[in-house]
This record gives sequence, structure tokens and C-alpha cells, in this order.
Amino acid sequence: MNKIYYGAALYPELWDRETTEQDIKEMKKLGMNLARIGEFAWSTFEPAPNQFDFSVLTETLTSLAEHEIDVIICTPTPTPPIWLTANYPERLHRNHQGVTMVHGSRQHICTNNRYFRERAAILVEQMIAAVAQFNHVVAIQLDNEFKCHVGPCYCETCKQEWHKWLASKYGTIDTLNNAWGTAIWSQHYQSFEQVVQPVSTPFLHNSSLQQNYLAFTHAKLAEFAAEQTKVIKKISPIPVTHNSSMFFDLDNELLADQLDFISFDTYTPAGKHPGFMMNQERWRYMKNDTRRTMLLETSTSHNGHLDLYGLLHPAGYLQAESFATFASGVEAFSYWLFRGQKSGCEQPHGSIVSSWGEPTIGYQPAKQVGELIEQLRPLLESSEVMEPRVALTYSDRARSFLTVEPGEDYDYKTLVTSFYQGLLALNIERKLVPEGHNLAETELLITPYVHYISDQFLEKVIKFVAQGGIWIAGPMTGDRTEEHTWHTDSGLGALTELAGVKEMMQFPTTGSGHKGEAFGTSVELSGLSSLFTVEDDVIVHGKVTAGQAQGKAFLIERALGKGKIVMVGTVLEQNALQVVIENYAKPYMAKHVAQVAEEIVIIKRKTNQGALQYWLVNFSDQPRSLVLEKEWRELLSDKQLGVGKHVIEPFGYRVLSQK
Amino acid sequence: MNKIYYGAALYPELWDRETTEQDIKEMKKLGMNLARIGEFAWSTFEPAPNQFDFSVLTETLTSLAEHEIDVIICTPTPTPPIWLTANYPERLHRNHQGVTMVHGSRQHICTNNRYFRERAAILVEQMIAAVAQFNHVVAIQLDNEFKCHVGPCYCETCKQEWHKWLASKYGTIDTLNNAWGTAIWSQHYQSFEQVVQPVSTPFLHNSSLQQNYLAFTHAKLAEFAAEQTKVIKKISPIPVTHNSSMFFDLDNELLADQLDFISFDTYTPAGKHPGFMMNQERWRYMKNDTRRTMLLETSTSHNGHLDLYGLLHPAGYLQAESFATFASGVEAFSYWLFRGQKSGCEQPHGSIVSSWGEPTIGYQPAKQVGELIEQLRPLLESSEVMEPRVALTYSDRARSFLTVEPGEDYDYKTLVTSFYQGLLALNIERKLVPEGHNLAETELLITPYVHYISDQFLEKVIKFVAQGGIWIAGPMTGDRTEEHTWHTDSGLGALTELAGVKEMMQFPTTGSGHKGEAFGTSVELSGLSSLFTVEDDVIVHGKVTAGQAQGKAFLIERALGKGKIVMVGTVLEQNALQVVIENYAKPYMAKHVAQVAEEIVIIKRKTNQGALQYWLVNFSDQPRSLVLEKEWRELLSDKQLGVGKHVIEPFGYRVLSQK
Amino acid sequence: MNKIYYGAALYPELWDRETTEQDIKEMKKLGMNLARIGEFAWSTFEPAPNQFDFSVLTETLTSLAEHEIDVIICTPTPTPPIWLTANYPERLHRNHQGVTMVHGSRQHICTNNRYFRERAAILVEQMIAAVAQFNHVVAIQLDNEFKCHVGPCYCETCKQEWHKWLASKYGTIDTLNNAWGTAIWSQHYQSFEQVVQPVSTPFLHNSSLQQNYLAFTHAKLAEFAAEQTKVIKKISPIPVTHNSSMFFDLDNELLADQLDFISFDTYTPAGKHPGFMMNQERWRYMKNDTRRTMLLETSTSHNGHLDLYGLLHPAGYLQAESFATFASGVEAFSYWLFRGQKSGCEQPHGSIVSSWGEPTIGYQPAKQVGELIEQLRPLLESSEVMEPRVALTYSDRARSFLTVEPGEDYDYKTLVTSFYQGLLALNIERKLVPEGHNLAETELLITPYVHYISDQFLEKVIKFVAQGGIWIAGPMTGDRTEEHTWHTDSGLGALTELAGVKEMMQFPTTGSGHKGEAFGTSVELSGLSSLFTVEDDVIVHGKVTAGQAQGKAFLIERALGKGKIVMVGTVLEQNALQVVIENYAKPYMAKHVAQVAEEIVIIKRKTNQGALQYWLVNFSDQPRSLVLEKEWRELLSDKQLGVGKHVIEPFGYRVLSQK
Repeated sequence: MNKIYYGAALYPELWDRETTEQDIKEMKKLGMNLARIGEFAWSTFEPAPNQFDFSVLTETLTSLAEHEIDVIICTPTPTPPIWLTANYPERLHRNHQGVTMVHGSRQHICTNNRYFRERAAILVEQMIAAVAQFNHVVAIQLDNEFKCHVGPCYCETCKQEWHKWLASKYGTIDTLNNAWGTAIWSQHYQSFEQVVQPVSTPFLHNSSLQQNYLAFTHAKLAEFAAEQTKVIKKISPIPVTHNSSMFFDLDNELLADQLDFISFDTYTPAGKHPGFMMNQERWRYMKNDTRRTMLLETSTSHNGHLDLYGLLHPAGYLQAESFATFASGVEAFSYWLFRGQKSGCEQPHGSIVSSWGEPTIGYQPAKQVGELIEQLRPLLESSEVMEPRVALTYSDRARSFLTVEPGEDYDYKTLVTSFYQGLLALNIERKLVPEGHNLAETELLITPYVHYISDQFLEKVIKFVAQGGIWIAGPMTGDRTEEHTWHTDSGLGALTELAGVKEMMQFPTTGSGHKGEAFGTSVELSGLSSLFTVEDDVIVHGKVTAGQAQGKAFLIERALGKGKIVMVGTVLEQNALQVVIENYAKPYMAKHVAQVAEEIVIIKRKTNQGALQYWLVNFSDQPRSLVLEKEWRELLSDKQLGVGKHVIEPFGYRVLSQK
Repeated sequence: MNKIYYGAALYPELWDRETTEQDIKEMKKLGMNLARIGEFAWSTFEPAPNQFDFSVLTETLTSLAEHEIDVIICTPTPTPPIWLTANYPERLHRNHQGVTMVHGSRQHICTNNRYFRERAAILVEQMIAAVAQFNHVVAIQLDNEFKCHVGPCYCETCKQEWHKWLASKYGTIDTLNNAWGTAIWSQHYQSFEQVVQPVSTPFLHNSSLQQNYLAFTHAKLAEFAAEQTKVIKKISPIPVTHNSSMFFDLDNELLADQLDFISFDTYTPAGKHPGFMMNQERWRYMKNDTRRTMLLETSTSHNGHLDLYGLLHPAGYLQAESFATFASGVEAFSYWLFRGQKSGCEQPHGSIVSSWGEPTIGYQPAKQVGELIEQLRPLLESSEVMEPRVALTYSDRARSFLTVEPGEDYDYKTLVTSFYQGLLALNIERKLVPEGHNLAETELLITPYVHYISDQFLEKVIKFVAQGGIWIAGPMTGDRTEEHTWHTDSGLGALTELAGVKEMMQFPTTGSGHKGEAFGTSVELSGLSSLFTVEDDVIVHGKVTAGQAQGKAFLIERALGKGKIVMVGTVLEQNALQVVIENYAKPYMAKHVAQVAEEIVIIKRKTNQGALQYWLVNFSDQPRSLVLEKEWRELLSDKQLGVGKHVIEPFGYRVLSQK
Repeated sequence: MNKIYYGAALYPELWDRETTEQDIKEMKKLGMNLARIGEFAWSTFEPAPNQFDFSVLTETLTSLAEHEIDVIICTPTPTPPIWLTANYPERLHRNHQGVTMVHGSRQHICTNNRYFRERAAILVEQMIAAVAQFNHVVAIQLDNEFKCHVGPCYCETCKQEWHKWLASKYGTIDTLNNAWGTAIWSQHYQSFEQVVQPVSTPFLHNSSLQQNYLAFTHAKLAEFAAEQTKVIKKISPIPVTHNSSMFFDLDNELLADQLDFISFDTYTPAGKHPGFMMNQERWRYMKNDTRRTMLLETSTSHNGHLDLYGLLHPAGYLQAESFATFASGVEAFSYWLFRGQKSGCEQPHGSIVSSWGEPTIGYQPAKQVGELIEQLRPLLESSEVMEPRVALTYSDRARSFLTVEPGEDYDYKTLVTSFYQGLLALNIERKLVPEGHNLAETELLITPYVHYISDQFLEKVIKFVAQGGIWIAGPMTGDRTEEHTWHTDSGLGALTELAGVKEMMQFPTTGSGHKGEAFGTSVELSGLSSLFTVEDDVIVHGKVTAGQAQGKAFLIERALGKGKIVMVGTVLEQNALQVVIENYAKPYMAKHVAQVAEEIVIIKRKTNQGALQYWLVNFSDQPRSLVLEKEWRELLSDKQLGVGKHVIEPFGYRVLSQK
């Protein structure tokens, strides 16, 4: 861990100097050492084309330096000024319904527009030049929440870029026609220029067309990020990051390639701790280099905007969040925002001081977090999070396959959360990893809901299994091609033979009365299920016992080298899912800590001397208990905890250490 | 019955020859003797303007002939190729919100576009010429599911056609103004060119305008069909049909005039047997010539597309469906589709073999249907369905009146289904007939929810009643004019005097506490009710006993010639409705078969020797019973069935024969 | 009270003369003395530009005069004829989604279009000239239900007018930028021409922008009304009115300035008596001159149009409505409409005779109302409604603040109704008053949900309080500036000091577990709450007892001159709200009438001799009781009512008089 950061977003462009100074002093008092500035201030920095004025920025930087507060500078490209778009509707984002956006919000421009890209490059170049000499600028954040509020753009620029992108991907239109199977419904194209954007048509578009439009959108966004990073790197070696979130329509893995390290935003409300923890345990592993991850935005007390007043965090929740964040190896915990806004549309959002300068309901919790950090600092500095050996694939490409084929209103995040929740509930060490994750530290890899398994991914997994890894794949994994067509040779393409599948039948089992048994537990099959007939060397762990497909297998295992490949063919209810997970992940459960209440999360760390620590946090607003099977030392209280039942107070936390 | 057909849709344009050959062999093995081909293959047949290539079609025809599989050739006009629409948005369908469709789906073109019609005529002419010499082509299907996924079109072409159509209908604009009552809200038009299409306006459009736009749309679609039929008939005498469904926005009676015989598609899931049976008993009577009807599309196992994975048919359901289809006098039972698709958007739909060539969950059921057909064949060939004497009017024009005036979210099909379900539950022989149905074989005619009763219809009914027929009309029947205005002379126009109504009051009774009594049953009045004061020679069977309209009549009967006219003035709950139906339809209930469970459907047939048969099918997934009041012979088991209770297994069937 | 009017809307342009004559005779028979005509008949009056024909109008006026029926002439500007809009889409209303309306409905034109305004002025001038000589024309109604069915318009005309309006309001663009805080999100404008209309943008627009677009829309509509009034006044001194309603997007206070007296429409169904009574007690006080108010539209029996058949009024409801209307000092009770329409889209609406000329279900109730009016006439003429001393602020500007900032899906009317219902339930005399209301007759003023308190309003209230008035303000009152920004000096701006607030914290308490106590009642805090720390001279009546803000005040009172200012900081449940209201409004509760059932409404009148009367009406369809604590004379029965419990029959009414 480089440095433990605690901070908030500041908007010096919105207030007079005196107010900003006051806020900076207050930050210092609260124990903060990080400020984020600049992300929406383009019209302040360049009020008219080529008239640059970064004085607000540099003055604030100077003042922050005096108070020893480090800074993340954010480029304000999400909010182009009016002179860039007034009278140029062709530069604006056009949504799926064909509606062109207007000025006044953010992400309202088409980021593929060439003139926008040019102006963004000039602005960013000037801005970085203005801040490069400040040593306390610890990172540059590109833009702000790419694709927040918007999906793919369907403007004319994008249409042309789409055609170029297709031409470059497929070479000839016949290659595209074959790959997409456009003989169906006479969809056949004679040239790339004819290929439609998937806007309104009487029924659904071709799955390959839809899938490719998402891929195109993701690729172009990464290209924009790359252009920005290049501009920055010409001037300054300051590391580049971006604050992404679980919700935006991005391929974060592609985007991560353009960044030096990964940051994220999360506004998860209390009561959804798996959602909160997934952030902590995903973003850290987005790049194979895990040295630095930052949480850049979260609420002090509640979310809010004109249309929504969010639910207040319960007392103690903020401390639990910050404890879990730092325990997980994330090095920054930063609020959006310090001072409530007076104008715009997010004035009702939680802050630390109000627009009129008084402490808000978020002030005390923020103060307590500052104190908590001081308490944790020595423990954090003398230990580090251990990379978990159990990995759950979390892929934005996989997500896009479920966007195109929602079937039963599937939502990728919800589906994968069910697996994650299983790991969490069983106190198994875990991480969420992208498809490109290096499996060196992984022993068990779980890959559900990845319809398309690429050759590269499969090759990597084969090596991983050969060397002793266990790969659990499915449900709905491997059953589509790269182009989102169905296989024509066998149900799972290359995976069929690998998994020892002889025949496969796929159909929706929800509500069809199909039942089965796996590891002694009875199972109700649901979702789009793949049912197998298998080769002789395959062990059938789950078999259909009732329903028209009686006798088929839905859970199979096959030894491969030193490892195993396990295929799950159906969507399992949570309890059955946990039985399956436990069967393979037992070695990775927390040791000597048992009967842990569901809301208690355990994070595994080790000291610089190699001693094991369990950092525990109770995400419930009620006391929750666990049972120790041996004595542990609790480091925050510096007390010995005996064998037996222990209660953790609401939102309480413990650091258990091996003797 | 001409020939008993069992088949499926094939898409040879999507697969290599070998795969298609394999599928044809498999069809043969399953007992199939019918294939449907061609409906979406325009871009294969005419990849560029005037470059025709029907080799895929003719090769497949040759192969099918070798396997003695007859063929229905479908014209691919629902999917015009890209060269017809790229750069010509004015040729595309424009929906109610003003959104112009793009290429990539089906029915995305405006079928009133002159250039499209020309190209369609050329393509169809070439196509029919290519297949005309094949003797096993037993029918030509026009297009595919006209108006599937789309409603009326609001493009510029349609605007001009609309003006022409109005000019031709009304002659002068003053005639239109008077007919539509456009003095209201200053809607008055000075010329036909000014008449709007009923697109967005702050509140609702004039009912006459809305009604006429639907009539225009229906008429133009029938005109398109007529043009296509004419092209075909120039070349070949092969009968022309079309696969319609209950759901599309068409006037099927108008369309039927352009066709030689009627075909239909139904995807009714298990658990909705009245919906399934309505199809069997409607389409057969769409034309007065009932010699041939075909079911051209149904699922083997489940419906599906990218956005929806449908519910799996329960075991046995497919056999029950096919039994009921053939028993009802329909001569084909054909699946959509044989081989699952690899691309497009309907890949998750049920099929017989998967895209990778393995048996699906639908394979076994399809095999069993093949075997069932062999078992039924001698019985079907030695008997025929008897035309029922009880008819229920089912009119697409009536439906359009409820589209324009949904009042309490009325849905025409749902409303009429309640009457149909009443007939089914009482084991009354029944058919659904269009307004133009020849009443020669009918003794009891029920006409609910036909707001507008035309002069021709009324004239026919008057004759029918005079000769002894019973006509039950209402609720909501006869209370609007042809132009969807309200009567100004009396509540029911010409019907007022005929039915012996002196005064009529119409208002919504739902929730108003109006109660009444009819045939000893208490009734809660609901819906838009017409309450009557009647002439002396009218029998009041239903009278309002509570509510502000106390004392008014809601169910009246008047003798007329040898028959009767019965007016129903309110929406009856199902049990009250059945009391009313039973009162008039008792003579038409099944004889000597009593206490029949609700899900058992009875179809009346007679042998070539004139012996009565009851074909029974249990549409429940549970055993269901009935009581025989005399002995019958069961022909499938060739056993005598004694007096008393008998149980039919889930989805089971019986053929009972008079001794 | 000038004259007691009973009437209905007539559409002589839709019927032949004979029919209209018949209707007029029938009106007379029912005791009617008022007709409304003309509101939609532009195409009849001016079928082509400058071809005027008012003969239908003048003939009908003549006939009505013969039957001694007074007339309100309505100008038909909501329905411009086709020649005004055909081929001129730029004159039509464009909605928020960018969809341009078409001819065929009403309010489909942009009322800011210059050519429309010119044509409207010409038409109205001609029309008024044609009717000015008729002495029985008692009022001119401008247009009909301004903004019925439509919100703000976003057409090009409006864009230009918007820019002019902004320039005139702000003078320089920098003033606007500062006022709106456009430094946020780089919203900064360089010129007024750049300021967007708040149409589609990826997220929400700036609150000031949204608020100003509503204000602009309201101002321009009032300007249109002013232009119309000016045209009329040039020709005739006949008083000008308009039929508004609670639901349309208007600033009725602004509009009222253009009118001589206020009229309104209400279609409140039975079961919602507070909604009905709010109309009676609001519109009367819209102008400070309360001499005349009319109810111009209500249903005889039920609402209805093609898409909706409304619920039938229960028996007696219409009498209860008319009793309450006249008791409240409203001088007209008029139906929409007399004869059911034959065409258009509102044919299913309740009327008195049907389109075919027979009595409807509304006929008898309308007859009974006529009889009731005859019975009430002497009592009404010898007494007048007393202006209540308790006033509840009801402000359309306040409503627009909640439109822009709905937070928790707030609906202004619903929120204020809760206060009104409290007053009603406690039998407290009450009125709804606009911000500009003269407080001369008011002793207690309650102002909830008025986010922005203007300087003028505050100045008036300060005087009012100084002279002994009590002002209850809040919740959500005073916490925003005129521009819908947040305060930056203190939480409530000028109100902070006035109310003795030292510090204020504002956050959403819904679901956060905050509890408190006020006047001995426990309270669950909810909604966007303002919690106070107060000066020493402030009495804390409500304090937070649980939750993170424990110890803060949510209900405070401070003496000021002879009066008090009370701040309510949270949304109270109904029972707690009533405890607070009762504490301050006790002196204004009905005297000697206790234990009044909730649905019984009490209206306070006094005779010309100064004797107090309570007019009571039971709005329930069940008998409801109250207890008299002294003897009263009941004037309708002319009987003495003793001390003790008395039951009022469903929808019954009484006039209690002091002895």
C-alpha cells in the first residue's frame, strides 16, 4: 500500500476563494489528505475557444499543498462548454430512440465526434501543462464516469465510424454476412455502408449486429481514453486513472489497458453488502498489476438529486464501509462531495457541509471515519491483503451477451452476484477477475454466464487446469460464438470435447417441473439449461430425476491433467449453489472462524512478517455473531478472544490475528 | 378431408445442402409429409435487383419430392432485401410515434409503397414460375404473418393513399364532415388533402377518423394480397393461402376473399385451451367454403427469442394439440421450425433438431405426434367434422371498434373468449364465424361486442330469425353507426324497433352497485350497459333490481317470425353468462356425456355412414373425468365404455362412437 | 351573491335548430337558467379565413333569451380550424419529447405563435361584436381549460420567445449565469440565444433552467389571456372569466389578474370530498375580490371518453355537490354537458339527455338538483358565506418548485391536501389562498411546501404576524431561492433570522428511523426535513428523540410582535399533523357541533341579520352522525334539533341556524 488516502471532491470553480479556503481547512481538520478537482470545469478553464484560464485550479492547488492535501486532477471532458455544441446538433449524443441530446447535463456529446476529440485534446494538454509542476498531484483522472446516463450513440458520426470499424474487423462484406448469418430474414448486406445501426425495427435485430454494436461502442470509448492518455503522457508522467462503476455500459477491461491504475465509484446503500464488497474485490483485479486501486466517490450520508432523495445511511455504516475498503487493499476512500451544491440538479445529495456552510448529517460520520483511519493506519501499513485463490470471472463482454439476449429478463450483475454471495456466505476468499486475468495466484476459477468463451481464454484455462486448477464453468457458458450466433458443430463448440460432453440439449427449464439431485441436495432446474449426455470418463454429480429430460446430467466433472473441469448446466437456487461451491471451495474457507452470520464479511490479510489476519466487519444494523474455534488476538482492542461465540455490534469490525 | 398433413418449416437458404438433406430424411423418419419453405429468402432469390437465383428452392423441392414430402411455397415479401430500402427511408414503415423503421427485421417496409409492390410482383412472378412445374407444391402462402409486429403505417405514401381512399369512399369532403361530425372541436376539413393521419395530438382523435384509418389499413393490406394473388394466378392454379393469427391487426374476412383457403398459426401455451380451440374453430369458418384449413405454425416445445425464453410444453400437450386440430377438421399440423436457427433473433425457439444437429427437447413429442397421426388416420379418413349449429360471431371489424373505444381497457378477444368458454364449458357444439358467414347450417347465432351492425348483416339475421333462428345480440352490440358515431334517432338504430326497445339508457355500470336477476340467477351488472324499456310483446328475462336504473330490463327476448331475437344489455359474470347460454343452447349440448370436467373438449364428427362420434381431449395436465349416460364404443382402444364415470389421463384423448 | 345559476353546456353548432330548441325547453323544465356556448366552434364561426358566420350563436342566444336563460359565451380558441394549421407544422404545439401535434384535438396549437394570436384576436373581436347586444350574456369565458392535456411547448417560436423573455428578465447573460450557477457542469452561456429549452439531455437539467421555463410558460399564457381580454374590453364591458382546474400547468394567480372573476371546473368523483371542497374554497379566493365565483363544469353522472368509462356517481352525490357549492358562496353549478355527443371522443361522458334525445342516468339527479336549488334559494339569498379566518396557502408557483424537484415523487396537491384534510376533519373554517391574498380577514395562515418565499410575501406576513397573526410555515418552506437554487448564507435565507434559527440541517428522513415528540404526540419524521438549532427566545414544540439528529428541533415557535411564527420542519403523519393544527386553530373550530364524522363538511354562513349558520353536508354514501352540544334550528325542515347525536343520511344536508 502506497499511502492511505481519505478525501473528497471540491469544486473551487463554484465558490469564492474564501469559501474554498474554509473548506480546505475543514478537510484538514477531518483528517483528509486527498482532494479531487476539475472534472466538470471546462467552461471555467476555457470560457471561449482557446481562451484558457486555469487560475482557479492553480490557486486551489497551491492552497491544498499548504495543507498537505494531495490532489487528483480530473479532466472536464464530460461537460463540453456551450460553444462546442450550440448550433452543432450533429456533435451531440443521439440515443436509441433517435433523440438528440441538448447542452445542460453531462455525457451529452458524441465522444466519437472528431472536432470534440480535437478540442478535448487541446484542453487537456493545456490543463496538464498548468498542473504538471505540482508535486502533490498524485493522479490524473480521465473524464468522469464514462457513459454515465447514456448508452451507445446512434448519430451520423457513429454510423460512419461503425462502418469503418466493421470494414476493419471483417475485411469484406461477405465475411460479415457469413459471420452474422445474414441469409436469415434477407438481412444480407451488399456493402459495409448499408449495415444499419440497431435502431427501431419492427421486432428484434440480429444478435450479431447487436453484439457488434456494443463491441464497437466499447472499443471507441477505449480509443477515446487512449487518445487522452497519450496527450497527458506527452507532458507528464503522473499516473492516469478513471472512476468507473459497475453500472455503466463499458468494457472496463479494454478501458483498463489505457490506464495506469484503476479507480471506482460506488454508491451502494446499506443493506446490500455483497454489492458493496464486489466493488472492493473487482476493481483491484481489473489489471494484472494490483498495486494501486482507489475508491474515488461514495456518499457521506445519502444519494440525491432533484428527482430522488436517497435513503440515509444508518449510523455506523460509513465506518463499516471505510474499514472494508482499506482492509480490501484499496488505498483511497473519497467522498462525493465536500460542500453541497447550490445549483445544478444534485443539490439534495449528501455532503459534509451544506451549501450554506453548516455541518450536514454527514459531518459526524465523516469525522469518525477520519478517526478510524488513524486507528487503522499502523495495522494497514504493517500488513497487506492476500490475493485470494478463488476467482470469479466478471466480464463486461459476457455482460453484453446478456444485454443482447436477456431471455428471462436476465441481468448479468444480479446473476453473478448470486455466485459472489455464495462465496461470501461461506467465508471463502474471493476476487472478481476479468477474462484477461493472469491465473498465477488462482487455484479455483468459477466462470458463470459467459456465453462466449474465446480461444485465448480457453487456452489459458486449459493450462490452468492442466497444472491443477479447478474450473467451474456455467450455467450459460460457452454456448455462443464470438459473433453471438449459436454453435453448429456441437452445443458448446470447443468446450464440448474438453468437458466430455457427447450430446447437449438446451431449453428453458423455468416452471417446467424439471428436478434433479446434486451432492445429495435436491435441485429445481431453472433458466436456460444445458443438459448433457457424457463420455465414460466424466463424473455426473447432478442428474435430472424428473421432467421430460429425465436422466440427463446437469452437473458434470472431468479430470484434465492435474486439475478438473466442472460444467454447471442450470441456474441453481442459492442453497443448492452453495452446496456446489462448498464442494470445490472448502479448502479456501476461513479457518477456525465458524458459524459466521451472513452479514459479517471476512477479508484475509497477512503481516509483513507473514502472520495471517482476518479483518471482519459486520454489515448489519443489528448485532451479529460468530464462533471462534481457537483463540485469536484482536488487534484494535489488543485483547485475547477466547474459543466460543462472539458478538459484533452493528457495523462493528475486528482485526483477528494469528498468535 | 383432402389429405392429412404433418410437417415443419425448412430454411434451406440458411444451411448447406447436406444439412438440408439430412433434415429431410429426419422429417420422413418422423412421419412428416409437408414442408414450408421460402418465406424470408428474398435476398437469396434476388441478391441484387433482377438477378434471380431459385436454385436453393428447386434443389430442395427435388429432394422433398424424392421423399414424398409435399410443399407449401411461401413468398418472401415480409423481408425485402437491403437494396430495396437502403437510402430510401420513405419506403419504410413509420409507426404511430413517427419513428421510421430500419432494415434488419420483417414487416419493416410500407406495403403501400408503389415501388415495393412492383418489386414484390416481379419477385413473386419469377418465383412461382420457378416452382410451378413441381406437382408436390400443394399451396402458395402469401408473405408471412401480415402485420406481425406492426400496426398501421403513418408514412407519406400512406398519407396520400389515405386521402385517395377517403375521396373514393366519400366523394365530397362535406360528406366526410357530416359523417364524422367534424363540427365538433372545429375538426372540419376543407379538402381530403387536409385530413390528418391519427398521430400525436394532445388528447384523443375523433372516433370516426380513428375507425376509418384502421379500415383503410385493412383494405390496403387486402389490396396488396389481391395483387399478389393475381400475379400468382396468371402463372399457376396452385391454391393460394396465408398464415394469419388471432393477434395481428388485420380484417381477416377481407383478406380471406383474396385467398383460396385459410391457414393459421397458433402458439398458445398449455393452460389456455379455449385460446387454442378458438383457432381451430374460427379459421375453418373464415370463408363459407370450409373444405380446407391448415395449421401452418406451432411450437414443438416452447416459444422463444432473444428477449424471451418461453414456457416448455408439458409432456403430452403436443399430442393433445394435434389430436384436437385434426379432430376439428383442420388438415395440417405443421411446426415452426425443424432445425433451430444459428443466427437472427429467434434462436432460442423450440425446434426438432438443434442448430448443431442434435435432437432437442421437442424431438420425442414430435415423434409421438407422428405415431398418433398414423393411429388416427383411418378414423379421420372415415369421418368428418359436423358443422356446428351454434355460431359465435367473431369479427375483426368489431374488434377495431373496441380498439378505438376500449372504455374500460376492453380487449375484444378476451371479451368474446368469455362467450366461447361458456359454450366449451357446456359442451355445446360451436364455431366462430365472421359477419359474412352463410347461416344455412346455423340455428343459434350469438353476436356479442359488435358495436356496429351493418345493414347487410341485419338483413341476413332478420331472414335467419324469420326462418326459426335464435339471435342473441349484445352486450355492446348495435349501439354505434358504421362511422363509429353514436346513434341520434334511437339507442340502437334499426335494431331498436326490431328488438322491441322503447327507450334505452347506456352508461358504465362497473362498480355502481347495479344488480339484477335473470333466469333465477342474481347478476351484478358491469361494463358499458344498455338498459331497456320495452314494448308489450317483449319478454323481460333480466331486470335491474337494485341501483339507480332499477326496473329497467337488461335481458330481453322477442319472437320474430319462427325465431327469436334476444338482447343482452350488460357484461355478465361467467356463471350468469352460462345460465343465459344454456337457456338457449341446451339442444346443442353433447348427448349422454355429462359432468364433463372443464378442460375436456368435445368435438362432434360423423362417419361416412352417418354415425355420430365424439372426439374428446383432456387439455389438463391432471386426470379429468366425465360421466357416460349410456354405453359408447371407444375406437382407439376398440373397447366398450360402460355407463358411469370415466377418467381421462393428462392430455389424453378418446374417440367415442355411437353403437 | 348576485344570482343563483344552474346550467349546462350547449353545442348548437353540432345539432339542427329543432334539437337545440328542444334542449333549451328541457333545460327550462329542469329549472336551469344558464347556458355555456361557443367554446369549440371556431370552424363554424369562421370556416375559411375572414368568412364569419355567427348565426348559430345568435339564433341560440335569441332562443335562450326567450326562455330566460342567461348565457356565458366562450371563445373557441382552444380549437383552431384546419386552415390555421394544415401545412404549418411550425404553428403547432411541440411536446417535451419533440413530437409536433396534429389537428384534431384541442390545445394543439402553440399559443405563442404570432399568427395564431392575430387570428384569435380577429375571431374574438368579431364574435364579441356579434353577441355584445344580448343583455343576457352575463360573462365571456376565454378559451376553455387553458393547458388542458398539454404542458410547456418546445417549438421554435417558444425558443425565440424564451430567449426574449430571459433577456428581458436578466438584462445580461452574466446575470443569468450567476443567478443559475451555470459554472456547474460547464453550463455557462455566452448569450441568451444559446440558452436551451429543457428538452432531452442525458440526466437532469439545472433547477433554475427548469424553473424558469415553467415561469416563462405561465407568463406567456397569462399574456395571451391579457391580449384576449383587451380585445373583448374594447368592444364590451361584459365580465371576462375562464374555467380553470386544479390540474392544469398554469399559474392561476397570474392568470386571474387578466380576468374579472374566477370560474372553475371540477370532475371529482364521489369518495374524494376533500378534493371537491378544495375547489369550492380555493377559486373563490383566487382574487382578493370574492364577489363572484362560478363552477362551470361538472359531470351529471360520470366522466367518460373513448379510452375511459368513469365511475357512476352514487345516488344523492350530485345534490350533495350542488348543496356544498352554493353553501360555499359559489354562484353557479353548471354541467358538462346537456346532450351527449354523437361524434368526437367524449361521447361516453355523462349528460342529461343522450345523443338520441332520451333521458340519461343523469336526468333524474339533475332534476332533483333543480328542485333543491328552489328549496335553497331563499336561504341562500338571505345569507352569505363568511370569509374564514384560517387560510392555507395554495400557490401554483410553489407547485412548480415541486414539479422541478419531486424528490420522493412529491405531488404538490396531494401534499397540501393533507393539511386541508386536517382542517376539514377538525371542522375548522378554512380557505385556500394564493400568495398574493390580502390577509385582512385572516388570523391564522398556514404555508406548507412553499420552497421559495418571496420578499413581498415575507413582508406581508411579517406585518400580519406583527398585528397578531399566527403563521405556520413548512415543511419544505423557505429553503430555496427565487431561482430554485439553495441558499448560501443560511438554510432558510431571510426566514432563518426571523424564525430564530441558529443552524439548520436538511436531509431526507424517510425510513431513517428518526422519531420525535410534539405536543405530547410521538412523531415519525419523514420527507425532506429541516432540523433546527434555535435561539434562546424560541419555543421548541417538537424535538428529535431518536436518530442521528437526536436533539434537534423540528417544530418551533417564536413570538413576533403580537403574533407568532411557527416552523414545521418535517412531513407529519395525518394524526400528528392534526394535533399541530388543532393546537393553533382551536378557536376556529365549529362551535357546539362535536364528534362530527369525517365525511361531514361544515360551511359557515351568516344571515343578512348577522345570525350564524352552519351548512352541513354528508359526503358519504353511508349515514353519518354528529353531536349537537346545544339546540339548533334546522331551516330546511324548519325543526328544532335537540342536544345529542344526530344522523345525516347518505349525501344528506342540513342548515343549522343560531336561535
